[in-house]
Amino acid sequence: MRGVVMYGPGDVRVEEREKPTITRPTDAVIKIAATCICGSDLWPYRGTDTVHEAPMGHEYVGVVEEIGADVSTIKVGDFVVGSFMASDNTCEICQAGYQSRCVHVVPMGQYGTQAEYSLVPHADGTLVATPAQPDSDLIPALLAASDVLGTGWFAAVAAEVGPGKTVAVVGDGAVGLLGILAAKELGAERIIAMSRHADRQALARKFGATDIVEERGDEGVAKIKELTNGLGAHSVIEAVGTQESMMQAIRSTRAGGHVGYVGVSHDVALPGQELFFSGVHLHGGPAPVRRFLPELIQLIWDRKITPGDVFDLTLPLEDAAEGYKAMDGRRATKVLLTV
Amino acid sequence: MRGVVMYGPGDVRVEEREKPTITRPTDAVIKIAATCICGSDLWPYRGTDTVHEAPMGHEYVGVVEEIGADVSTIKVGDFVVGSFMASDNTCEICQAGYQSRCVHVVPMGQYGTQAEYSLVPHADGTLVATPAQPDSDLIPALLAASDVLGTGWFAAVAAEVGPGKTVAVVGDGAVGLLGILAAKELGAERIIAMSRHADRQALARKFGATDIVEERGDEGVAKIKELTNGLGAHSVIEAVGTQESMMQAIRSTRAGGHVGYVGVSHDVALPGQELFFSGVHLHGGPAPVRRFLPELIQLIWDRKITPGDVFDLTLPLEDAAEGYKAMDGRRATKVLLTV
Repeated sequence: MRGVVMYGPGDVRVEEREKPTITRPTDAVIKIAATCICGSDLWPYRGTDTVHEAPMGHEYVGVVEEIGADVSTIKVGDFVVGSFMASDNTCEICQAGYQSRCVHVVPMGQYGTQAEYSLVPHADGTLVATPAQPDSDLIPALLAASDVLGTGWFAAVAAEVGPGKTVAVVGDGAVGLLGILAAKELGAERIIAMSRHADRQALARKFGATDIVEERGDEGVAKIKELTNGLGAHSVIEAVGTQESMMQAIRSTRAGGHVGYVGVSHDVALPGQELFFSGVHLHGGPAPVRRFLPELIQLIWDRKITPGDVFDLTLPLEDAAEGYKAMDGRRATKVLLTV
Repeated sequence: MRGVVMYGPGDVRVEEREKPTITRPTDAVIKIAATCICGSDLWPYRGTDTVHEAPMGHEYVGVVEEIGADVSTIKVGDFVVGSFMASDNTCEICQAGYQSRCVHVVPMGQYGTQAEYSLVPHADGTLVATPAQPDSDLIPALLAASDVLGTGWFAAVAAEVGPGKTVAVVGDGAVGLLGILAAKELGAERIIAMSRHADRQALARKFGATDIVEERGDEGVAKIKELTNGLGAHSVIEAVGTQESMMQAIRSTRAGGHVGYVGVSHDVALPGQELFFSGVHLHGGPAPVRRFLPELIQLIWDRKITPGDVFDLTLPLEDAAEGYKAMDGRRATKVLLTV
């Protein structure tokens, strides 16, 4: 089968890889319908993380090709969406809603879903079937549910977004934008998008942003304070993962407010004393997307949300290298690869 | 009047200070019945924080001596308990339960309650009167409510302690011990005290600890994991404020669990990537004691809790220097000063 392999920074190739086969009775193999490139795939692409000849991709939707003997909740032919972390969904941590930290967790990235097929461990716990075969226009939205939508949604939940609240969103990538969509769905009264790109601002507004702040860092914080009677936002979504973005998020939050952070932290050190006196709640990490999948799939199926809007470039799998280049150069927010 | 003044590290004196008088219509002056020495008073005593000729103390109970024209909820002669942070209790932040971050907050430490009298700003928002003049044996417990009990209680609430949960407590000072008491009152199923001092272990057990872990750092974490099926505690109370204690708390918490931290952070830097992948909730800071005062006073009044047990040395105000020395040398957990 064809699949994406990263050989090192900037070196992405599509080549022949071995088609996966079932090795455990709880496995499934799916034929990928669509996959995409994640903001986190840019960390190794830019050399921040080290890779060598690694299969790439952890977002996916597709059709079940084969199932192991113990798989019971999905069947061959089902159209399925799964999280970027495979989980048994039965352990104590999964049952508490933290499937991305399942005691038997398997990162899907190790299989590389930017390919024609993928193995999915813990198929029962990981995959959720759609009510029927989806219309093709729903596929991008379902694919978004696999990671970026689920992550933005978790960020909003972690930030305790709700009715009557003012929410600020740090980061205008796909996750930040879908954090805005989630905040809107969760009933936020006011949603402030921090963005300086006209196209992303437009999508932010479409998703429900009521205000745009172009300033960053201390100036951005001052602007959020100005818009919130000097107090800061009730809820802040952090969707970048740098020292600056984390501090911008913490400082934009009022005492007793909540920061939901989902940008994968790189070289971040939080100053204890400042955090202590900020009085904020901090919660985040790898999103337990599986917790939200049934609800998100239903919202998409009922055409109540359009998270597929974050894909602004669609390429065939064979052109994956061009997709990485476009995201790296910020010519695309999020690239969908058709398979 | 007589009052404690710290001249520098290790240099505590009791000397004549000017008796406070009302300057704003929302002020009160109280005659202190009892006050105490806080773990945080040791930071300047040990030279970690810088002070010069500073009045000391922020914990207090006493009788209202005089009130400003606008004070309406307390009257002269009332026996009152107040938080270590004076707050108006009407602003948006106070109403959300974060009175220690009131937009008009005044730290009581600047008045120095280790004295015969103290000014209390925002008297209506800060002070809570007891149902009647307390029996003298209740005074230590009411005094504890002013800071250490309220702080331990907040830590337990921040750590989302509740029925069915396993709680670990890092730190066996007065706050950690009262975090145990709070966890017990809030219905925790299992409470693991991390302590290596026999006397403190005994008090921990009296307050409700079901297990004692003597190990610290990585060994302590391993022990907590061992006691929790490899997962970590649901809720962890951090009541020290050092890098080691914070990391011990975070690492002892299961994914999706809650850390309530109330040790005043000194030289702490939290590694972002580890925090991200820990998946814990982090909340803490200066405890909004005022939020809990009515409930805590009632529990004490009804003799349901005995937080005054943390005082293991009682001295007259005049001997404050000896009290500091005893706490610094760990000969006393918490020193009560009678006035």
